[in-house]
This record gives sequence, C-alpha cells and structure tokens, in this order.
Amino acid sequence: MNFTDKLAKQIKLKNNPSVLGLDPKLEYIPASIKEKYFVKNVNYQKAAAECIIEFNKRLIDALYDVIPAVKPQLAYYEMYGIEGIRAFNETIGYAKEKGLLVIADGKRNDIGTTAQAYAAAYLGKTPINGTEQEAFGVDALTVNAYLGIDGVKPFIEECEKNDRGIFILVKTSNPSSGQLQDLKLQDGRTIYETMADLVNEWGSTTAGQCGYSSVGAVVGATYPKQLSELRKRMPKAWILVPGYGAQGGTAQDVAAAFDKNGLGAIINASRSLMCAYRLDAWKDKFTHEDFGKAARAEAERMRDEINRAISEF
Amino acid sequence: MNFTDKLAKQIKLKNNPSVLGLDPKLEYIPASIKEKYFVKNVNYQKAAAECIIEFNKRLIDALYDVIPAVKPQLAYYEMYGIEGIRAFNETIGYAKEKGLLVIADGKRNDIGTTAQAYAAAYLGKTPINGTEQEAFGVDALTVNAYLGIDGVKPFIEECEKNDRGIFILVKTSNPSSGQLQDLKLQDGRTIYETMADLVNEWGSTTAGQCGYSSVGAVVGATYPKQLSELRKRMPKAWILVPGYGAQGGTAQDVAAAFDKNGLGAIINASRSLMCAYRLDAWKDKFTHEDFGKAARAEAERMRDEINRAISEF
Repeated sequence: MNFTDKLAKQIKLKNNPSVLGLDPKLEYIPASIKEKYFVKNVNYQKAAAECIIEFNKRLIDALYDVIPAVKPQLAYYEMYGIEGIRAFNETIGYAKEKGLLVIADGKRNDIGTTAQAYAAAYLGKTPINGTEQEAFGVDALTVNAYLGIDGVKPFIEECEKNDRGIFILVKTSNPSSGQLQDLKLQDGRTIYETMADLVNEWGSTTAGQCGYSSVGAVVGATYPKQLSELRKRMPKAWILVPGYGAQGGTAQDVAAAFDKNGLGAIINASRSLMCAYRLDAWKDKFTHEDFGKAARAEAERMRDEINRAISEF
Repeated sequence: MNFTDKLAKQIKLKNNPSVLGLDPKLEYIPASIKEKYFVKNVNYQKAAAECIIEFNKRLIDALYDVIPAVKPQLAYYEMYGIEGIRAFNETIGYAKEKGLLVIADGKRNDIGTTAQAYAAAYLGKTPINGTEQEAFGVDALTVNAYLGIDGVKPFIEECEKNDRGIFILVKTSNPSSGQLQDLKLQDGRTIYETMADLVNEWGSTTAGQCGYSSVGAVVGATYPKQLSELRKRMPKAWILVPGYGAQGGTAQDVAAAFDKNGLGAIINASRSLMCAYRLDAWKDKFTHEDFGKAARAEAERMRDEINRAISEF
C-alpha cells in the first residue's frame, strides 16, 4: 500500500487526524527519568539520548492506539551529536514497531544528485558494495523546494519506488513566514501560492486510491485564511499542519484544512502533547511523572475537538 | 577572530580561494581502501564509514596546506545512517586539527525555536544539565531561508556569539533553480534578487575587519551573469560558489564573484578534486591509489587558474 493510502487508513482506523510531534527538549522530561541516566562520570550527550529514548518510548506507549503518526523533528536530535541521532533512530524504530507512521521533519533540500542522497537516507536505501542498506527508513519526510524540481524529483522517485511520502513547505507557521512567502509575483500569485501550484504539478502522477498524492504540503495553522485557500488550491495534497496548540492555532483554524469527508490533513501537536501535564486542563490531575497519561488525555481531547470542528465546519 | 576574518586570513595565507567539497561517494574510493574494510561479516554501513574516513583524511593530508577550507555535504554522510554521521564527525575533527575551516553543507532551515536547535548543533553548543556540549562544531553552515528572518536569526546569533558563519541559498547551481528563484515579483525583482537583498539586510550588523559579513550567500558558478550581478548587489557577503568543474562552471565564470582585491568568494570543487585521478589532465600521471597526489595537482592547477582569471577579470 502506498504512503497516502496508509495514512488515510490509519486516520480512519483511529478516527484521528493528528500527529504527535516528537521534539523532546530535556526540560520536558521528568526528573525521575533524568536521575536514572545523569549519573556520575556519564557522557552528557549519551545521558541526554537515553532520557529522550525513554521519554519518547513512553509517549508512544501511551498514544500508539490513539494517534496515527509521529513526527520527530531532526534538529532536536542533531543537537546531541551522534548520540542524538541514535535517539532518533531508536525512536523511529520503536514507533514503526507500534504500527505508527513516521514523518521525519528534516526540511531537507539540495540539488539533484545530493537530493538523491537525502532521499536514499530517509525514503529509500543506500547502495553499498552490491547490497542495499537502510539508513533512517521513515514513511515521509518534509522537504524545502526553494531549489525547484530537480531538487525534489529524487524524493518523489523514492516515494514512488518505496511507497513513501513528502511534505513540501508552502506557507510555514512562523511569524516571519510572509517575509518571502507572501511576496507577490508579476502574475498576481504570492510565492506560497506559486509553491502550492508546484506541489500540484509535482504530485499529479502519484495519487493513491484515497484521492491524495504522495506529494503533500506544509501549511501553518497560524494562517487560517491561507490554510483555507490552500486546501482548495491543492485538492490532491495532504496538508501537514503545524502550529496548533502552543503556537496559537485552534481547532476551528485547522478545520479548513480538511475535505468534506474529513480527510486531507494531519494536525501536528508537539509541546501540547509532550507537556500536557503542564496544561491548565490537566495539571491538577496528572503529575510530571504521569506525562504519558496526561498526553493521552490531551490527545483524546484534541482528537474530539478537531473532529467536532470538522463536522461543524 | 570572527569567521569572516578567519576565512580571509586562510585565503590570503594559502593564496587560494577554493574549497574542497567532501561528498565521498563509495565509487570515488580506491579498491585498496575498500578491501581493507569490506571484510567477511562486516556491518556494511560501518565499512562504508571507515572507507570514507580514510579517504577524507588522506585527501585532507594531501591538501591541507594548499586549500583554506573543506565543505562536507551532510547528505552523503546521512545516507549511511549513524555510521555515516560518525564519519562526518571524524572528518570535521580531522580537518580542524589540520587547521582547515569547515563549512557544513546541510542547507538547514526551520522556524525559530527549531532553527535554534540546528544552530546549537552546528554553530554553538547544546545546554545539557547545566553544562554546554558541542554536537557538530563547524565554522559555517549553509542555510535555506525560505522561512524568513525568524528562521535565520538563531543562526546569526550563534555566528555572533561563537565567531561562526552562514551561507544562505540565493541562486543555486542546479538546472531548475530558476523554476522558483527566477520568478519576478511585482516590484521588478526576481526571487533570488529579493533573497540577496535579505542577505544584505540580515548581515548588516556582522562585518569583520576584512569588510565581509558572517552572513554569506550561495550562488552557482553555472549562472555567471547572475553571479556577476549578485557580487555587486551583496557587497558585504562572502559568496560560496558551487558548480565549478564537474557541473560546468569555468574559472572565467567564477572570477566575477570576487572583489577588486581578489577576496569575497570561495569556489567549491568536489568531484574534480576527489576524482582528480580520472581527469584527462592527470589520468596518465596518477593511479587511483594516488588519488591524494592527483587531488593536490588538480587543486594547485585550479588555484592558479582561478587566481589568473581573477587578475585578468
């Protein structure tokens, strides 16, 4: 089954179009875990990696039957060096074991031959001495397409060959995303609309049975008007929506990202799930040690809130 | 000394404005190295990493007194998984030991808090339990600025704090770079010109004594007309120029990237140095085993050719 149908199936199965963002800052991790690994004379990067692995695994244990996918953000692993990459690798392995789809948020990009190497690293296999070896096999990868089609094509080729997906940055959730993305071209389109049209063009040959393509888009919940317009503009693209929760996007904001069947988008929540125990709704019910239970309660609340907003949209 | 002055000093010291791109495909590595590491029952990713480490170290040994900097391309290490990252890490450590500047070509990009994590990973240190730990400390990093200033500022902050540099993608060397980058805005500028203006704006506060800023730009040698225009448009930005040699850019093409003092640009060569033994000029003089000597001969030829083209420009 190709990525886009796998994603549709998982979303329907769990009746939940949301994604657990795994951006595990050490400050999110309870003292009981840290005490276990930060012992005398330990290598600090190794201890940090062990904390992240346990924290992620326990989050996955608490959520794997509620959510369809996880989205580890590579920056938060690369910052711990090789040990951090090991934590990333163990996290994606564990998530896959638990039946979750894995979207690596790496925003990778380069010219053709180098994009091919990135595509092999995340969406395919690397040829070594007559064999093919998997580096970091994930289901999908975020991609920055500033370089144009020959920086994107190698990713699409691996998607087609190995049933994987990509999400191309169209309109990002950050405050200054408009500095470049909102500028208007002479043909009247903004740069982000132009990128959306390229997403359509590049994904035109890769539709799954669910009607969506393996070439998706990233559009921030923090720009609800653009999200609504872009849903119509890219009718075949899955929209990966960051910015819900901690960044300010609401369920009403993200409802516009879905089609009339409640498909077509996945809403990411990182901090509000990882640190659910800190939220007003849960802080009196769960301690920091119960971060998994708090995350589950918040994930169910988020699921219900988004599903309600979709049905009322 | 800040990055930009260190770079100027190294270029003057070696009288050479070129960079060794370390994109070590296994096919570039001689059989004598591969035979040593691809032994019975070996882990293939580990063997590939060992080959890359030896190949890179021998290239560095052959070139460290001729060239000012190396530019490992992260994709070619990530494709071998954790072992590949280890090879990257050993390579940058060895290059620094030999006094070379290291530019990591990762084209990283993300929103503010996540860009901060990438900046810590490559240009700073990561806070862990009251200490600060270096992940992959390099002198400079390539950055994709599609997300606007709050995705770039965390990198600039680390540059200022730790004397590092960034190179922002402006006009890339690939055939389809124009698909997005050449489109015209309503104010008459192309997208790449707009990006160049942002590079000026973002780098305005970070000039070194050499007159150049720690916020540089990437412009491909394959677009000599644009390279010449962009030199004038970004008077304070170091230009990192890929596309010389194997991609088709000539010494005459890249001469336009320099100022009247012969500073302001660094020209990358990857394949033409790593595989110099295959070039018509050297294939009868050096065997594959002598790849280091061939690389040195080609690096000296390239240096002289570029310096001549600059002086005749």
